[in-house]
Amino acid sequence: MAGKEFVWDDRVRIYDTDSQGIVHYAGYYRFFTNAFEQFSRERLGSEFPLVSERVWFVVVESNAKYYKPARLGDKLRTHVHASILGKKAMRFDFRIHRGNDVLCDGYVVQVAIDRRRWKAVAIPQGITRRLEKLR
Amino acid sequence: MAGKEFVWDDRVRIYDTDSQGIVHYAGYYRFFTNAFEQFSRERLGSEFPLVSERVWFVVVESNAKYYKPARLGDKLRTHVHASILGKKAMRFDFRIHRGNDVLCDGYVVQVAIDRRRWKAVAIPQGITRRLEKLR
Amino acid sequence: MAGKEFVWDDRVRIYDTDSQGIVHYAGYYRFFTNAFEQFSRERLGSEFPLVSERVWFVVVESNAKYYKPARLGDKLRTHVHASILGKKAMRFDFRIHRGNDVLCDGYVVQVAIDRRRWKAVAIPQGITRRLEKLR
Amino acid sequence: MAGKEFVWDDRVRIYDTDSQGIVHYAGYYRFFTNAFEQFSRERLGSEFPLVSERVWFVVVESNAKYYKPARLGDKLRTHVHASILGKKAMRFDFRIHRGNDVLCDGYVVQVAIDRRRWKAVAIPQGITRRLEKLR
Repeated sequence: MAGKEFVWDDRVRIYDTDSQGIVHYAGYYRFFTNAFEQFSRERLGSEFPLVSERVWFVVVESNAKYYKPARLGDKLRTHVHASILGKKAMRFDFRIHRGNDVLCDGYVVQVAIDRRRWKAVAIPQGITRRLEKLR
Repeated sequence: MAGKEFVWDDRVRIYDTDSQGIVHYAGYYRFFTNAFEQFSRERLGSEFPLVSERVWFVVVESNAKYYKPARLGDKLRTHVHASILGKKAMRFDFRIHRGNDVLCDGYVVQVAIDRRRWKAVAIPQGITRRLEKLR
Repeated sequence: MAGKEFVWDDRVRIYDTDSQGIVHYAGYYRFFTNAFEQFSRERLGSEFPLVSERVWFVVVESNAKYYKPARLGDKLRTHVHASILGKKAMRFDFRIHRGNDVLCDGYVVQVAIDRRRWKAVAIPQGITRRLEKLR
Repeated sequence: MAGKEFVWDDRVRIYDTDSQGIVHYAGYYRFFTNAFEQFSRERLGSEFPLVSERVWFVVVESNAKYYKPARLGDKLRTHVHASILGKKAMRFDFRIHRGNDVLCDGYVVQVAIDRRRWKAVAIPQGITRRLEKLR
């Protein structure tokens, strides 16, 4: 698999489910988070969202669309695609598969901030460069 | 407060926060869920999302935009607005305030299903009628 | 209600439940946390667990025994009893009722620390005095 | 590694942490749950806690003792030891390591029930036999 694409495998745990017998809608953000944290560690050399002493990333938008329910024990595969939005923001797009079925699409937008002033700043060049090279 | 508007008060708990010292992005869906469950109980006479033996509501989309961070102990007020989308779906819009600050906007779309066949069905009339009357 | 006893009312939310149709075992710690945070705010004049710039409380043990399951929409009442263990530790005991049924007993032990050195320290006198007066 | 011992590796995620900058005390039960679900799948050939159409396991007690805090990104190793308590109950003991440090000890006791009558029943022989063989 090339470039900015990245895949993360998960298993549905009992605590992901609710009394409808399916994964709770907000639980999919756990799978998204697992995927972008691991993407950042392996591809960007950075521990999201605390990327340095000075720079953190904070989420400014999240979205998920649910097509089919996932259940306890299901093996899920989350595809991640990362992109740059302007100088200060990154977007992660996610698609969750169970075998050939697409269960969920979603995205998370994150903005780089100076953690002391809590103001938006440019994404560190180390991250943008590594992301560029992934093409 | 008139009609379909409803307000629910919450407090940020330690488990809502993460190591950035703020409410975790997915944690806002907990506030949304508290608000629509309580709205449904008080205004629609129904226990969402398990509204009857036959009909459940399942979430098909969720979204949140985050403007300012909330922190441990903050008192939050969530405004809910419910609306009908076609015959089978409902949409809940949320706005979370801390005092005069707007911290977060979001929505959740839910579809009525027959829980045995897991197929979309018309929203029960008891719910649509009560929602109409709230105008 | 006298003294160190305190009561906190909760409602079981969809996210507290799992695919067994009951509250997930770890979910009861959410009710415990709600109860001791509110106890601390109202009775001790302190925002647990971040009680000051210098002193935090950290959990060193947690325990819960489950007698009967709680389900979506259940109204729960959590009784809290706080006590001092030595100079540095506090213990909160909990009992959760649904009507006359006792559903769960548990406790949490917390130790005061200097948050910069991350070392145990004496519980602030403001807290021990207020707790003494509750007798 | 012999017998009933089993090891499960985890990573601390942002949602495991709270505003103290460490893993939230109830978050360790997530690591315990991951470990006993995987143990059951690999060693007992069973999907805990829903082991069959008729038999489920429900948690009747949980406990954790916390020695040192875990932080975002930490690699954790959870050791599991399973044992039989009488005819109807199983106990899972856990020890969580970060490298050579022991961070947390705990246990969970589960009872087999007939899921329709919600009454305790004997643990299925398929499980007790596989557990015996692990010696």
